[in-house]
Amino acid sequence: MTDQTPIPDDQAADDEDFLPRRELLDRIDAAIQAGDAALLNTLLDPMHGADIADIIERLTPAERRAFLTLYSGEIDGEILSEIDDSIRDEVIEQLPPEVVAEAVREMDSDDVVDLVEDMDEPERQEILAALDATDRAAVQQSLAYPENSAGRLMQSEVVTAPEHWTVGEAVAFLQSEEWLPEQFYHIVLVDPRRHPLGYVTLGRLLASSHATPLHDITEDSFRTISAFADEGDVAYVFNQYHLISAPVVDRDDRLVGIITIDDAMSVLDEEHEEDILRLAGVGDESHVSDGPLATARQRLPWLVVNLFTASLSAIVISRFEDTIAALVALAALMPIVASTGGIAGTQSLAVAVRALATRELGRANARRVVMRELVAGMLNGVCLALILGVAGWLIFGDVRLGMVLGAAMIVNQIVAALGGVLVPLTLNKLGLDPALASGTFVTTMTDVMGFFAFLGLATLVLL
Amino acid sequence: MTDQTPIPDDQAADDEDFLPRRELLDRIDAAIQAGDAALLNTLLDPMHGADIADIIERLTPAERRAFLTLYSGEIDGEILSEIDDSIRDEVIEQLPPEVVAEAVREMDSDDVVDLVEDMDEPERQEILAALDATDRAAVQQSLAYPENSAGRLMQSEVVTAPEHWTVGEAVAFLQSEEWLPEQFYHIVLVDPRRHPLGYVTLGRLLASSHATPLHDITEDSFRTISAFADEGDVAYVFNQYHLISAPVVDRDDRLVGIITIDDAMSVLDEEHEEDILRLAGVGDESHVSDGPLATARQRLPWLVVNLFTASLSAIVISRFEDTIAALVALAALMPIVASTGGIAGTQSLAVAVRALATRELGRANARRVVMRELVAGMLNGVCLALILGVAGWLIFGDVRLGMVLGAAMIVNQIVAALGGVLVPLTLNKLGLDPALASGTFVTTMTDVMGFFAFLGLATLVLL
Repeated sequence: MTDQTPIPDDQAADDEDFLPRRELLDRIDAAIQAGDAALLNTLLDPMHGADIADIIERLTPAERRAFLTLYSGEIDGEILSEIDDSIRDEVIEQLPPEVVAEAVREMDSDDVVDLVEDMDEPERQEILAALDATDRAAVQQSLAYPENSAGRLMQSEVVTAPEHWTVGEAVAFLQSEEWLPEQFYHIVLVDPRRHPLGYVTLGRLLASSHATPLHDITEDSFRTISAFADEGDVAYVFNQYHLISAPVVDRDDRLVGIITIDDAMSVLDEEHEEDILRLAGVGDESHVSDGPLATARQRLPWLVVNLFTASLSAIVISRFEDTIAALVALAALMPIVASTGGIAGTQSLAVAVRALATRELGRANARRVVMRELVAGMLNGVCLALILGVAGWLIFGDVRLGMVLGAAMIVNQIVAALGGVLVPLTLNKLGLDPALASGTFVTTMTDVMGFFAFLGLATLVLL
Repeated sequence: MTDQTPIPDDQAADDEDFLPRRELLDRIDAAIQAGDAALLNTLLDPMHGADIADIIERLTPAERRAFLTLYSGEIDGEILSEIDDSIRDEVIEQLPPEVVAEAVREMDSDDVVDLVEDMDEPERQEILAALDATDRAAVQQSLAYPENSAGRLMQSEVVTAPEHWTVGEAVAFLQSEEWLPEQFYHIVLVDPRRHPLGYVTLGRLLASSHATPLHDITEDSFRTISAFADEGDVAYVFNQYHLISAPVVDRDDRLVGIITIDDAMSVLDEEHEEDILRLAGVGDESHVSDGPLATARQRLPWLVVNLFTASLSAIVISRFEDTIAALVALAALMPIVASTGGIAGTQSLAVAVRALATRELGRANARRVVMRELVAGMLNGVCLALILGVAGWLIFGDVRLGMVLGAAMIVNQIVAALGGVLVPLTLNKLGLDPALASGTFVTTMTDVMGFFAFLGLATLVLL
């Protein structure tokens, strides 16, 4: 009854063990090319839906079409909900409507919401029509909340009990209830107006005597989440307080659903993906299945922006052409100051973006962190200035050149450290994602300032 | 009975709502300075241990000493296990031994392992002495597994049942059992040699009739984890298969503990932190509570490395001093090619590091992804070459200069795209962290190649 993919121990393992093995992928490819639906079924049958979804994502669009022709009857709710947003529409279009309808009926309401939220109205209605009335109402209730909110993330199936029940009453209710969610970990106590008042873990319920009132065994960890809360904040709260599930309430503090930690974990993972890709100036999304054209298109915008910001550096340098003409060695040395500033800016930026994401950095300590960056930048500037300055002096036999290199390095390290923290703090204050384009801003600052400080000082001191 | 920090809805909220409010922090500061232990207690009493730990982390070392003098009696196991590794030793040293002993006795075995694993032997023994014999044995068993392994992450308290039990027998057992873990979600079925055979969720247990055999209601999601598996792989498996808990087994496939999703979520979060900081060339750890000196020290190593790698660019440029002397405008233009290459390399790198972390990239598809990067790099190189080439031609009135700019841009975009994926793939193959220092390698490549291609072509074509 169990999937056949135990986690290997480290003696035998490398990352590859978590990917479908190459031979398996080769056999799947062969089955697709041979049009052998039976073989494909045999190969995929023991696999988890999430792994099948990964295989589908890794195929090229042409391979995917061939695959779906052979395998469409086997696509179920689990596979469909695991397929990445970026190709899910493409997959759904190629599936027979009755397969989609059947798959959707198997899915939890939160997975259906995730499936339909980016669809156009006609396609969305088609999917919703496959659901029974209760499930459809639950999905529509979720869709009424803003994108990326707790309301979109929750499932509406919650097991509740009146606050005055005893353990025995709750156990009897669970025994008699026809329908229960597939996964639930708490019973939420509600008052007659459905305000959640606390929750009881199933473990505690099982361990307590039947006469115990439920409100005597509620958990201290209980906290509710507004349906309007941002999903990133939801992930933060789950991670911070080690929650397993948390009831979601509307503006009147009434229970509307529940979020479980596995969904919060997925959100945490996606938020990290956004941070790392945005910091690097890649679009919001990037997938291993993307073709070269899609890949190029995602990345071109920031490259073009950088082309223009880099021109600022060129303009700065061009103002010092006379200086460079007089001492061509300066042209060779100027990238050292600029590039070391770029690294320092990136360091400061990564720390700030991460600290903002984990709520370690906020208004309460922003001033202290900025001061720290300033001092750290000065310290490293002085260290690097000594190394570079002495090297410049010894190599070129000119103490003044060494001093110019060192002074420019100090200035640029300070600019880098401050820019790295002030740019994301400012973006955050403006309500923008602090990771968005920060990298381009900061390296432009350190390039421009690196060239300007070095060539400017050189003009003053050396000519 | 509940903590007083509900998640606010988006109408009132910004990130600040998740930090202790500034006024509260100010009042805490005032209480520390006034030496008012009673006021401090009143302010902190309603807070969750994780939030108190965050406050302790945010204090300067001097403030922290003053804080602990006033508050040490209140430090419990929850606060202690939430305090970041980097300052926990410092905190423990300042606490009375009986407070530490009491706190440790309250902690789960996995939290004690986390606490003592980096300690020297004498300190570790002191902590372990506070535990009763069973807990101490559990901690020592965990410590026998490698660092960052599933064995270190697991808790040894597992609720098990013989495979042949019925629901009624399991329920009776839970009712009569004196001791149960605070949080548990499954009952693990074991054979007489403690091999785990499946698990039953408590929800299913509660909903089933007492006569039902447990093995009729086990979950399909069941999978075991080797105690030697890397914790990053554990986090991946939890996220991939939506696990809530998973039994941990030794080399003989015998049950030794269980890992729950909240611990896997913390690991996922830490792995992301490592990725983002290592990519940026910051040490493994960086904390908002770090002072300027610690901050500077974490970042200096890669800055010094960059100083040397940047000297490679300087050496390349210096070989073309005659070319620059003949046409000083080249000095102003060369950083455009280099910096746009740096951005492209960073993009390709971030995507590759992320894909390796999520197991989307592996040996099975490495060749396809490298080819994609090559083609995407060429495509973007041509686009950027057209923009830059035409601009150079129009501004300088020299079509050959435009062609040199364009050609150098294409070469460097290809180098950037390939370097961004090949460097992390190579590090990964060598068993190193693909994020480690990749940024410095890749930007060195794009700088050197950018300057070389541009100045080399300029020498051939323009002089």
